[in-house]
Amino acid sequence: MAKRVRDILSMFVLAIFSKVIGTKLYSRRSAPAEPESEANVCLSWRLAVEANNMPGWSTVPLHCLSHVETYMMGGQYEQDVNYIVEQIESYVSQVVLKGDGCDGCDAWILDIDDTCISNLFYYKDKNYGCDPFDPGDFVAWVMKGECPAIPAILGLFTKLVEGGFKVFLLTGRDQQTLAPATIANLHNQGFIGYHRVIFRNQSFKGKSAVAFKSEVRKQLVEEGYRIWGNVGDQWTDLQGECLGNRTFKIPNPMYCVP
Amino acid sequence: MAKRVRDILSMFVLAIFSKVIGTKLYSRRSAPAEPESEANVCLSWRLAVEANNMPGWSTVPLHCLSHVETYMMGGQYEQDVNYIVEQIESYVSQVVLKGDGCDGCDAWILDIDDTCISNLFYYKDKNYGCDPFDPGDFVAWVMKGECPAIPAILGLFTKLVEGGFKVFLLTGRDQQTLAPATIANLHNQGFIGYHRVIFRNQSFKGKSAVAFKSEVRKQLVEEGYRIWGNVGDQWTDLQGECLGNRTFKIPNPMYCVP
Repeated sequence: MAKRVRDILSMFVLAIFSKVIGTKLYSRRSAPAEPESEANVCLSWRLAVEANNMPGWSTVPLHCLSHVETYMMGGQYEQDVNYIVEQIESYVSQVVLKGDGCDGCDAWILDIDDTCISNLFYYKDKNYGCDPFDPGDFVAWVMKGECPAIPAILGLFTKLVEGGFKVFLLTGRDQQTLAPATIANLHNQGFIGYHRVIFRNQSFKGKSAVAFKSEVRKQLVEEGYRIWGNVGDQWTDLQGECLGNRTFKIPNPMYCVP
Repeated sequence: MAKRVRDILSMFVLAIFSKVIGTKLYSRRSAPAEPESEANVCLSWRLAVEANNMPGWSTVPLHCLSHVETYMMGGQYEQDVNYIVEQIESYVSQVVLKGDGCDGCDAWILDIDDTCISNLFYYKDKNYGCDPFDPGDFVAWVMKGECPAIPAILGLFTKLVEGGFKVFLLTGRDQQTLAPATIANLHNQGFIGYHRVIFRNQSFKGKSAVAFKSEVRKQLVEEGYRIWGNVGDQWTDLQGECLGNRTFKIPNPMYCVP
């Protein structure tokens, strides 16, 4: 009887593993395609978002809610961010700061929301981005100043500051209403030693993210800064003018800033 | 006893499912991170490639061979391409061709290798891109003229041609040596009705892919063409000048054209 139980167990274990993990490993052109599962479709959706094939997408498709939840909370998001930060740090280690008399002209730009600090726990209550954006709710969340640091980016930030780069935190958050809470939040999460936090002020109201951030970067370059790198979770952080020597896209499948 | 067997089975099934699928679904910051599995690391690598965080990467990491094989052969690659083509066709359906006396100035640009026709069966024998690029072998493969069409792109191509767009196929393949085999291959796969195939000729030898393709697109714009869209599997297809109104990145985790 013990053997029979063992056999049944083995069969179940194999059946489940082959279903979940290896189903299509050895399929070839001749094999008929499996019906599209929701996971497959949502993988395709997320890839399209991250490869910038869907600029200006509005909300997460409802059928991808659990896919995005699993991605964000299940470890893969964190793993993906860590991997990109490894690439960034590898690049940083090759940068030779110019000793040309320009004291501290070597700059980096980091976006704030979902680059330095995370809104994951806000979006968790918004069905991971399936719900439409609610500006009032988001402001209330920001005012709490409780966004946690994204650990790998905090590590990168610290290395950049200690390595002699001037780090600019560049955000679309409104200066007039959100600056104090944002700065308090950055400090309580360990983002200390940056060169400047640049908010969207009155003069940029109504301008697109690309126009606003391009203009700011252009001003920095005119001030004499060399932008070695530029990190953001939105493609609109990484488009336009004076992008910097390298750009890095942090994943974000929960919302899109057009 | 039967109940006991049922209980043990249930327990195993649940244990395996929670291990394989949902382990970290409800994990929070306080939970220790799981050790990184190879699948996770290769997912991160592939995302970094597709989001252009690793420009100029050389070969597929050996530990990602089976990941890339599964991705390319198991259905997800095909699904991802199909999804992007759906996005492209949705965009195409919104384009209103100008009736402004310019007869046929509305253009699209499609790359050839792994955009229109596939080198998957070549790369299958090169460990899916884990082996270093072998120019001689690749030329021999191209000369056979046996690259299969990528079905969704062939469908898009046909719709573009029938819709009145002038379709330009723009490739880094060498004109002098590879043009006849390439054209024969395109024809035997159904790519008929394009406006022009543009190869890399003598004057572009030694130039980077971005410089070559930018220069060609610039010439087309100077000839009066409006580039509505530009589709490629390489980021270097989609960077530089005169990119077109929209660009679309087809996945390719097997090689990188710097």
